[in-house]
Amino acid sequence: MLNFEFKNPTKIIFGKGQIKNLSNEIPKDAKILMLYGGGSIKKNGIYEQVINALEGFQFIEFAGIPANPEYEVLLKALKIIKDENITYLLAVGGGSVIDGTKFLSSAALFSGENPWDILVNNIKTEKGMPFGTVLTIPATGSEMNSGAVITRAETQEKFGMGGPGLFPQFSILDPEVIKSLPQRQLANGITDAFTHVLEQYMTYPAQAYLQDRFSESIMQTLIEIAPRILKNPADYEAASNFMWSCTMALNGLIQKGVPTDWAVHAIGHELTALFGIDHARTLAIIAPSHYRYNLESKKDKLAQYGKRVWGINEGSTEEIAKLAISKTEEFFHSMEIKTTLSEYTTDYKGTAQKISSRFTDRGWAGLGENKNLKPSDVEKIVEMSY
Amino acid sequence: MLNFEFKNPTKIIFGKGQIKNLSNEIPKDAKILMLYGGGSIKKNGIYEQVINALEGFQFIEFAGIPANPEYEVLLKALKIIKDENITYLLAVGGGSVIDGTKFLSSAALFSGENPWDILVNNIKTEKGMPFGTVLTIPATGSEMNSGAVITRAETQEKFGMGGPGLFPQFSILDPEVIKSLPQRQLANGITDAFTHVLEQYMTYPAQAYLQDRFSESIMQTLIEIAPRILKNPADYEAASNFMWSCTMALNGLIQKGVPTDWAVHAIGHELTALFGIDHARTLAIIAPSHYRYNLESKKDKLAQYGKRVWGINEGSTEEIAKLAISKTEEFFHSMEIKTTLSEYTTDYKGTAQKISSRFTDRGWAGLGENKNLKPSDVEKIVEMSY
Repeated sequence: MLNFEFKNPTKIIFGKGQIKNLSNEIPKDAKILMLYGGGSIKKNGIYEQVINALEGFQFIEFAGIPANPEYEVLLKALKIIKDENITYLLAVGGGSVIDGTKFLSSAALFSGENPWDILVNNIKTEKGMPFGTVLTIPATGSEMNSGAVITRAETQEKFGMGGPGLFPQFSILDPEVIKSLPQRQLANGITDAFTHVLEQYMTYPAQAYLQDRFSESIMQTLIEIAPRILKNPADYEAASNFMWSCTMALNGLIQKGVPTDWAVHAIGHELTALFGIDHARTLAIIAPSHYRYNLESKKDKLAQYGKRVWGINEGSTEEIAKLAISKTEEFFHSMEIKTTLSEYTTDYKGTAQKISSRFTDRGWAGLGENKNLKPSDVEKIVEMSY
Repeated sequence: MLNFEFKNPTKIIFGKGQIKNLSNEIPKDAKILMLYGGGSIKKNGIYEQVINALEGFQFIEFAGIPANPEYEVLLKALKIIKDENITYLLAVGGGSVIDGTKFLSSAALFSGENPWDILVNNIKTEKGMPFGTVLTIPATGSEMNSGAVITRAETQEKFGMGGPGLFPQFSILDPEVIKSLPQRQLANGITDAFTHVLEQYMTYPAQAYLQDRFSESIMQTLIEIAPRILKNPADYEAASNFMWSCTMALNGLIQKGVPTDWAVHAIGHELTALFGIDHARTLAIIAPSHYRYNLESKKDKLAQYGKRVWGINEGSTEEIAKLAISKTEEFFHSMEIKTTLSEYTTDYKGTAQKISSRFTDRGWAGLGENKNLKPSDVEKIVEMSY
């Protein structure tokens, strides 16, 4: 096990009917900016529950934060925060709204001149404006971590940001929100969380037996609930396990003491930037090729995963490893998640070279748990994903 | 899954050579009371590491906190805290030292006249004096939770206490401390952590699939590392998994969203109070009888545990449940932990009746996950443990 530090101060308020309790979490004298997305919360009753809970508070609404939260849109919210002397942010939405709110939390207290520097210079946020969240789409885990990904549409780029100042003060997770989600978002959420676990697990054995088992536990649970959720999103038992699994998949716990990869995300982000493919689906395109390309360095963990998560008991380490990759693809397919780029766009030729060049231009230091994947390796992985 | 709230703000600093980093965690202007036990830290080098890390800080030492931290001893430390205007507490020890420090954290800021009231009136601590810990014995999980158990020798009683103000600000977990521990403490630690998981798991199915798997993960890991640790406590890989498993067994996570039992602890505490039997060993005495006595209400979870943790694949639910209890006993025996009261004392007759009467006298509301175990049930369980 590697040395590590772990601290996660976010308060989770989980379960049916919990949205009303947000009024206990926000200071009474706060001036709140409530942020949300495209308005689906007005159709599923969550908007009304939040507005009711905010009775007696001073608040302003900011709607229209898009999927893959855009820098230009966030700047408009930042202006309101400054003009209206906002003191507290409330994100009501999925990962995009929460990530956008994290950028605003940082930018609101940023002492520099241009908030763009937070992203482009990768400035760690030690203190942000306090914020809470009401989660409406289980997927990214942003509700219980201190990271965010922000998009700049103008340059087709995605930037990661974060820091200890960006944990939500509280997050309300009511699994009943799941019943109103479309199949596409449910499948995306399961795929996103599953791949989050893979990124923190599918490396090389580090004798972190407990972390490995926790990761396997999350994957087993996602596999167990996936068909139930897709068949009936109102199945509360499945929904609650889905929601909690997504949070635990990326709240920092399972990555402590182990090497992590994140190459699938790094490459996947480029596919979203270039083609607008849903984030989760880009992961399902890249992950299988990434694991096949790096079979030699990852085969021991792939085989452990094959045995423990998929119950594959026969074959050599390499055979079990390969079969485990196929099982993963089948799992994605079972949720109608396609796993090759050509199924999403006809314009895929040259993508591998383009992504590889972008990595080269940025002076990328090396991807993967061993930091030894070069842009030329990325090119081959993307080609294998066509 | 049941509704829940979860917040655990303790910062964990885990790994080899981490003790020196405690100097980054304590305010430079703090006036520290460093608390420890019987002096074993002076033999294994931890005392020296802590003293070196405290260079430049103002601190006083308080040695001699005994196992099952005694109220009378703690009052002496409380006097020093007040007389010397202490502002920060540093516990260097196992669960007893940390629990004692939690009582002091609470008592130091207690506004009432008599700190005894905190225990006897079960007063929840919202704000305590800040404290950190350097863990020297993995077992109780006290390093990452907000609860404590305090003993009053005079009346042979143990009292639980806690509250959100009693999370350590930081805890340093260096698995290298394990190599100096005697076999007895190693076996106790594994047994204690294992039973902590059982108390939060061995109830009835609550469709909390992820929490169940996390609990099973901890138990599987403890079973995996137990023989290695007992054979060679310097086995760092086993030691690090042992230490992290103990912490995760009782940091609040696995009990969220599920019913919990804790009858084994309630009864076990009485055996420590009456006979001075090590805490962990009292749990090993009571747990098997408790599960046999309550087989009907617990058999579904016992069978799940039997299948997933012990790999028992054949038999009816009841047969697997019973075999799982035997496997648990065998596990304790494999660590030289005896599981009947008569193996610890010849003076055991009448114990069942005595404990049952003590529960009756306290007006106990009912034990177990269904709160339906009466003192007469406790009497039978203890009798089965002779």
